[in-house]
Amino acid sequence: MLKVIAEDFIKPEDVEIVIPLYRELVEATKQEPLCIAYDLFIDEKDPGHFIFIEEWFDRAALDAHCASEHFRRLVPLIDQHTRKEATYILMTAF
Amino acid sequence: MLKVIAEDFIKPEDVEIVIPLYRELVEATKQEPLCIAYDLFIDEKDPGHFIFIEEWFDRAALDAHCASEHFRRLVPLIDQHTRKEATYILMTAF
Repeated sequence: MLKVIAEDFIKPEDVEIVIPLYRELVEATKQEPLCIAYDLFIDEKDPGHFIFIEEWFDRAALDAHCASEHFRRLVPLIDQHTRKEATYILMTAF
Repeated sequence: MLKVIAEDFIKPEDVEIVIPLYRELVEATKQEPLCIAYDLFIDEKDPGHFIFIEEWFDRAALDAHCASEHFRRLVPLIDQHTRKEATYILMTAF
């Protein structure tokens, strides 16, 4: 099991543009056979701070996600609206 | 529903000291009636970077957690071993 937190920081004026892109990304990713969880949250103090909490069967499942059509098409579209670089943490259970 | 990510940064030489404190904190917190999830993870790249992914019934449930005997006793003990200040994100579902 691999747990991931991925954080995006979107320009405040572009939040409305990215919402349908995130919606499509979440819906498509949840269909991936080795995706255990892929849930998106928004920072209560910062509506442009989007946080994915993800769970994957293994590292290969995450790599397959990053190589998927929907990831390779949608993430660059989202990244056009970021105000700073995304962050990622790969984690193991305590 | 309130989702929380809380991150602690422990001095590398003190990781073994905090592990039993975290274990007790997780076990006691999971017994709280309004705690939906309280799971602890470790950054694959940094064994002193501990990440809680929490889910609470509401803000009052989180406040009750922070006022609990186990939180008020164990968190200051853990905090003696931090290398920088903890961070918290309170989140709503996308």
